[in-house]
Amino acid sequence: MRLATIRTVAGTRAVRLDGETATETGEADLRALLSRPDWREHAGAAAGPVHAVAGLDYAPLVPSPEKILCIGLNYRDHVREMGNELPEYPTVFAKFAPALVGAHDEIELPVVSEQVDYEAELTVVIGSSVRNADDAAAEAAIAGYTVLNDVSVRDYQYRTSQFLQGKTFEHSTPLGPVLVTPDELPAGGLPISTTLDGEVMQSSTTDQLVFGAVDLVKYLSTILTLNPGDVIATGTPGGVGHARKPPRYLTDGAELVTTVEGVGELRNVCRLAK
Amino acid sequence: MRLATIRTVAGTRAVRLDGETATETGEADLRALLSRPDWREHAGAAAGPVHAVAGLDYAPLVPSPEKILCIGLNYRDHVREMGNELPEYPTVFAKFAPALVGAHDEIELPVVSEQVDYEAELTVVIGSSVRNADDAAAEAAIAGYTVLNDVSVRDYQYRTSQFLQGKTFEHSTPLGPVLVTPDELPAGGLPISTTLDGEVMQSSTTDQLVFGAVDLVKYLSTILTLNPGDVIATGTPGGVGHARKPPRYLTDGAELVTTVEGVGELRNVCRLAK
Repeated sequence: MRLATIRTVAGTRAVRLDGETATETGEADLRALLSRPDWREHAGAAAGPVHAVAGLDYAPLVPSPEKILCIGLNYRDHVREMGNELPEYPTVFAKFAPALVGAHDEIELPVVSEQVDYEAELTVVIGSSVRNADDAAAEAAIAGYTVLNDVSVRDYQYRTSQFLQGKTFEHSTPLGPVLVTPDELPAGGLPISTTLDGEVMQSSTTDQLVFGAVDLVKYLSTILTLNPGDVIATGTPGGVGHARKPPRYLTDGAELVTTVEGVGELRNVCRLAK
Repeated sequence: MRLATIRTVAGTRAVRLDGETATETGEADLRALLSRPDWREHAGAAAGPVHAVAGLDYAPLVPSPEKILCIGLNYRDHVREMGNELPEYPTVFAKFAPALVGAHDEIELPVVSEQVDYEAELTVVIGSSVRNADDAAAEAAIAGYTVLNDVSVRDYQYRTSQFLQGKTFEHSTPLGPVLVTPDELPAGGLPISTTLDGEVMQSSTTDQLVFGAVDLVKYLSTILTLNPGDVIATGTPGGVGHARKPPRYLTDGAELVTTVEGVGELRNVCRLAK
């Protein structure tokens, strides 16, 4: 099953996508839908107003998650190319909901920085509350997968030891376009990439993840309860602009395409804030 | 004016405190109250059901803020005693709402750690949306001040470079009991302290802050819009348990009292999670 949050003239709506059509489920957004214990059956049976997929205006997949948890240093190839040891524990930092934009929205480049960078990430969305999960409970709590670009303002990120201020600029972070339930995911590692103005900047596969989705849900659930609609961005592979020589940053008008094959594609134009 | 969020048999309620009585304002919590552009006049004139202050059951002052922003390394005396230079930029990290507890609630000590520590903090609550603030706009956006203890699970905090995982354990962080509007704040630096089982562990004054409330609102508002109910914990002075020789941590049954004079006092018993 594929689910999304779209914008309509009446406000946002959760929808189920089937081929060329999207059918409203009756909830205002994906978080509200996933907060129903029967969300799978309810969404599967939904028969509300229908939209053409071709004309959809995607909101952030979860417009207002309670938590956006981001993982750093989580691709083996990237960790090794940097000459580092594989980590014993996940590196975890946050974003806040106002950072999010939709799958085809503009990414806002802040006027205070010229070092805005991209980070393609396979992303988990939680479908049921879970604490102190074992493997089975962690797997059962995953509603599905989506795509996020963890757009990062590098000078702010590295102003102090803590990344947050470079990670949560307003309207910086596309999330979506759809949630793909685990049963629809292709087997094996999924190709993940970023292209910038048509040039491939990041290219890896998700089997390079050090901590996979189930590992992360287990780990994070020892700290606090994960709830429906919570977002876990699993980290990015090598090839980010800040590590290139010379560095390569996002500029006004640049087109960023972020893809996880079998999950989805974000297409965003970057726009300098006014 | 003093405002709070209390628990009643009908759910949480925002209240105005006057001496020995608390009067409901009609909103479910402080965030809902502060989201009204006329919150000052509305709260000042409120004449709903009345409760005795002595019997109040305080919820977290803002039960579900959109953002909890925490500042590190922000007391001059503490920075200097550690032999560090004063920072050029604030260090900023996050907590998520499920970390919060009320002013007299139990603090939950996780079973996975024996290194849980205290951090008394003067805390700002935002009263109107603000972006790219100058001094006057930043000052106008501050609804008032409260107290937070940024309880920190040190082994998790230092497992990686990013503090978040040690800062957002569920039910760890008391916030409240009341919001005090700026006009009621005593002039000058306010004494701030933590006592643990009656012993003073932290004692400083808020005039030691490197970045004050207005500075922080200005800085953070360059990154994203601050909204009503957002919480900014301004950092802690010296004396934390982790830096003591030998270290001193929170244990089952310990009583933690966190005070900012003229603002409020948190009284919490620590309880090992089951």
